[in-house]
Amino acid sequence: MMYGYIGSMKTKPGRRDEVVSLLVNGSDDLRSAGCRLYVVSVSDTEADLISVSEVWDSKERHDASRQLPEAKAAMAQARSMLIGDVTRQEVTVAGGLGL
Amino acid sequence: MMYGYIGSMKTKPGRRDEVVSLLVNGSDDLRSAGCRLYVVSVSDTEADLISVSEVWDSKERHDASRQLPEAKAAMAQARSMLIGDVTRQEVTVAGGLGL
Repeated sequence: MMYGYIGSMKTKPGRRDEVVSLLVNGSDDLRSAGCRLYVVSVSDTEADLISVSEVWDSKERHDASRQLPEAKAAMAQARSMLIGDVTRQEVTVAGGLGL
Repeated sequence: MMYGYIGSMKTKPGRRDEVVSLLVNGSDDLRSAGCRLYVVSVSDTEADLISVSEVWDSKERHDASRQLPEAKAAMAQARSMLIGDVTRQEVTVAGGLGL
């Protein structure tokens, strides 16, 4: 079964698009790290809210990807623009379309 | 910009896998209706919780797909096994991998 991850984060006022760029630009290297899907979204109703939905081959590959130097650097840069923690939900992917 | 939809629902005890099957089996026809991505997941920590993440060409196509007879029938069947409402969050997809 594939591993899924749903996260959300709130940025400091006006910093949303910078964080979105960081997250989207980092996605090129994810496929070789075991990522099947990585979707960055913004809320239509709540300012400065960003959602990330990810599907990975396994939790182990997801965890390992976070230890990559580029990933750590991008997360550190993003965190400086966030308010509060990243909320996260770990799920098991049951199926669907487009995976 | 693509339209994203994140939903979650809680089933009556023990009915989760039936609802998951309903949701996954209905996904074949979605691509022609404008759906790019449709992921059905279950929680690792909360029993009977199901998450659905969807990406569509537009909100209009998503809304239209819900009016299809097969979609209405499946949702009616699923609803009889749910507790409470389906929580939903509408988002705008900013980018990512695998879309």
